[in-house]
Formats: sequence, structure tokens, C-alpha cells
Amino acid sequence: MSDIVYGRNPVYESLRAKRRQFHKLILAEGIRQGDTIKQILSLANQAGVPMEWADRDTLDGLVHANHQGVLLRASGYPYVGLYDLLDAAGEREEAPLVLLLDLLKDPQNVGTLIRTAEAVGVSGVVIQERRAVGITASVVSASSGAVEHLWVAQVTNLANTLSALKEEGLWIAGLEAVEDAQIYHKADLTGPLGVVVGSEGRGMRRLVRERCDFLIELPMRGRVASLNASVAGSVALYEILRQRQVKADR
Amino acid sequence: MSDIVYGRNPVYESLRAKRRQFHKLILAEGIRQGDTIKQILSLANQAGVPMEWADRDTLDGLVHANHQGVLLRASGYPYVGLYDLLDAAGEREEAPLVLLLDLLKDPQNVGTLIRTAEAVGVSGVVIQERRAVGITASVVSASSGAVEHLWVAQVTNLANTLSALKEEGLWIAGLEAVEDAQIYHKADLTGPLGVVVGSEGRGMRRLVRERCDFLIELPMRGRVASLNASVAGSVALYEILRQRQVKADR
Repeated sequence: MSDIVYGRNPVYESLRAKRRQFHKLILAEGIRQGDTIKQILSLANQAGVPMEWADRDTLDGLVHANHQGVLLRASGYPYVGLYDLLDAAGEREEAPLVLLLDLLKDPQNVGTLIRTAEAVGVSGVVIQERRAVGITASVVSASSGAVEHLWVAQVTNLANTLSALKEEGLWIAGLEAVEDAQIYHKADLTGPLGVVVGSEGRGMRRLVRERCDFLIELPMRGRVASLNASVAGSVALYEILRQRQVKADR
Repeated sequence: MSDIVYGRNPVYESLRAKRRQFHKLILAEGIRQGDTIKQILSLANQAGVPMEWADRDTLDGLVHANHQGVLLRASGYPYVGLYDLLDAAGEREEAPLVLLLDLLKDPQNVGTLIRTAEAVGVSGVVIQERRAVGITASVVSASSGAVEHLWVAQVTNLANTLSALKEEGLWIAGLEAVEDAQIYHKADLTGPLGVVVGSEGRGMRRLVRERCDFLIELPMRGRVASLNASVAGSVALYEILRQRQVKADR
């Protein structure tokens, strides 16, 4: 599998993370060599990545998105196995925190949420292989490259994965505004935890919801009934970090 | 000023909020009449809004975005005055909470953040008239129509507005990851408050930052240094709501 990473931050983070094989760096002729571009050139040089200059039209032909004049041909996204992710989580001193996405379809939402997940320091992210967006170039871009540093596992069946995580001692919290959900900040989120975010519009699938140990929701005080999925997930992730920091400070 | 509101939720919320003048509802021929479309037809009918059916190509020609087969020709966005916004805030039992956007440029970010602001129940939102995105059709769409229910004031100079808000007894918190910023959840955010969110990439302007009473930041535990502006703002808004709910429960 080969892939194109595009945009200044995504290419910079990909080269910094060193988790893909890099085939070629392509830069737009006449690109302004600001700080990030200089760092990209230096990292590519150190790693012995072949470089090529091309005109903007050639780059536009390769990527139909805002590439900012920087393209990196590389191997596909380096998914990890679920148990590698959990093993790595177990080696850290803090309680594991895994983010699970149930059939999210919008690359912008997935990338934005993954960027937050990286910022709060989750152990890893789990997505389902079929019927959901994978870690495509658009997701890498929307994550501003953060996903290059994160451990992401792709699984065949998310509901079964929840059972496997429970056997490993994680509690599973589903984020959904339903009647029996608790207000998110009233739930104890400091232990080993998996958090499930449902898809835009439809929420979690029934089989996924049923395997959650408890449901949490954000209070809604306006006249519009829902939040953007990546915002709701991000607010929940930051509340988990807040609770853990408060507990650690005690 | 006339405007086109597009998309199922935005058109529905606009009709429900009844704050614009509605000139004409245009629907795609053969559109599936699900719940939201039925409600739109009913609201438009009650309000005596002229209706028209058109083919998809005509709609595509009117709006270059995902209009979902629903367009509403209406008067421009109904901005309110800054003091109307504050008066209304003063009439509520809780401490005023005003969200201020310093030159945000991406309609998606502005719309997403405004959707969260509506969900937490802010008193209103303030944006600068020049050099920033206004409440355009794309912003209405990205807010999923939430902005139709919200009070938004457009001001000529945001820094001066901060001084005016301080005279009205509000404290001004700037959201920015700088050295002298406090971790957001350690700051007391329960009083009368204005929160300033800076633009994507550049943050707040110096003159705006200098008028803030204090700065708050989100902890960043990953390898990537920043968050999406609408996510950072949304996390801060929900922390304010959380603190106020905890205080009210005491």
C-alpha cells in the first residue's frame, strides 16, 4: 500500500514520527521556505528521502486538496494490532485510555477528533475496518499530522473488540445523549477506560451500545439538539484528562 | 441584504427561530419527505412563505455547497447590538457568558464553535466586522442552524469591546497556550465572563491579548503542539458550564 501525505504540518509530523517508509518528497517550485519547510527539508535529507521539485499544476494533479505545495509519497498508514496497543498502554504508569470510533464517516471529524486524542495523550485509537473511514490522507491532514504519532488499530468487529477490552480490565463508556446516560462530568472517568464515539447523525450501533458499561452525555442547554461528533468526543476526552489530573494532584 | 440559507437543519432552525424575513423556500423536485422536510413545509406554510420546486441543477447553480435539496431565500443574518446582548444577559439569573472571536477566518471553525456556544447556553457571541468571517451561509450551515437561535453582535473593534465589557463587570479570559496562562480547569470561570478565542494559527492579536484579565490554556500531552481552534474553544466553553453546574449543585 502506498499513500500520499500532503500539507506542511502533516508531512513534517510524518517525517518526524518515522513510522512510514518514505519514497519521495515533492515540493512546489518557488515555495516560500518558512520554518516548517526548512525542517521538512532537513528531516528528509537526514532520512535520505529522494526529493523532487514540480510545478503547482503537477501537485494539483496528484492531490485534489489544499496540499500547500508539499507532498510526501510514503507507505500506507502504519496500523498497529489491538494487543500491541494494549501492551503499550499497560507499560505506562497511568490508566489506559482508548478511543473507539463507531463507523464515523467524515474524514474532517475523524481527523479533528484524533488530533484531540493525541493532545490528551490517549493510549490509542480503534476503528472498524469496514463501513468506516480509515486513516486516509484527508484524515492525516485534518489531524494536522497528529495521527502519525498515535497508535491506531483497525479491527473487523468493534462490538467484539469492546468485549476483548473489558476482559483486559477496561470499563467501556459510550458517549450518547439518551435517557439513561449520566452527565459526563459526574461519571468517574479516572480508571482504565475505553470511550466510544458514535457516527455523525446516527450515533452508536445497538450492538455496540449494548456492550458499554455505562453511557455518558454532554448537557445541552440550547435549542439545537446535537453537537458536532468531533467536538463532543473532544470535550469528553478533555474531561477525562481533567479528572485524572485532579486525582493525581490530590 | 438578502441571503440564502441551505441544508435541512439550517433551514429548519431558521424557520423555527423566526428572526429573518423569509422570501422563498425552494425544494428539489423528488426530495424524500422525511421528518425534517415535513416540519420545514409545515413551518413555511404557517409563516406564509412562498414555495417553489426546482430541479437539482437549478439548486446547484444557486448554492455551491451541499444544500441537501433545501434552500431558503431570506433577509441577511439578524445581528444584534452589543448592549442588547448584554441587557438580555443581565436579565437571566446566571452570570453572563460572552464568546468573542478574534479574526477567525474558517467558516467551518466558526460555525462549529458557535454550535457549541449555543449548546452550552452562552449569552451571546461577538465578532469583529472587518477581517473576520461574518455569519455567512457557510457558517450557518456549519453551525447546523444553531446560530439562528443565538445573539451575535458585530463590532468595529474587538479590543475596545473588551474594555466595554470590563466596564460592565465581566472578566475577560483569553484562550491561548502561552507561558503565563493558567491551566483552564484551575481557573475560576463561574463569574460574569467573556472568553476570547484567537484565530487559526496566529492566536489573538497583541492588543486583544493585552486587554484580557487572565489567560487560560488547555494542557497538551502529545507531540503535536496545537488543537483545532473550534475544539479548543468548545472544550473551554464546556468547562465553564461544568464549573457553573458544580457550583449550582453545592
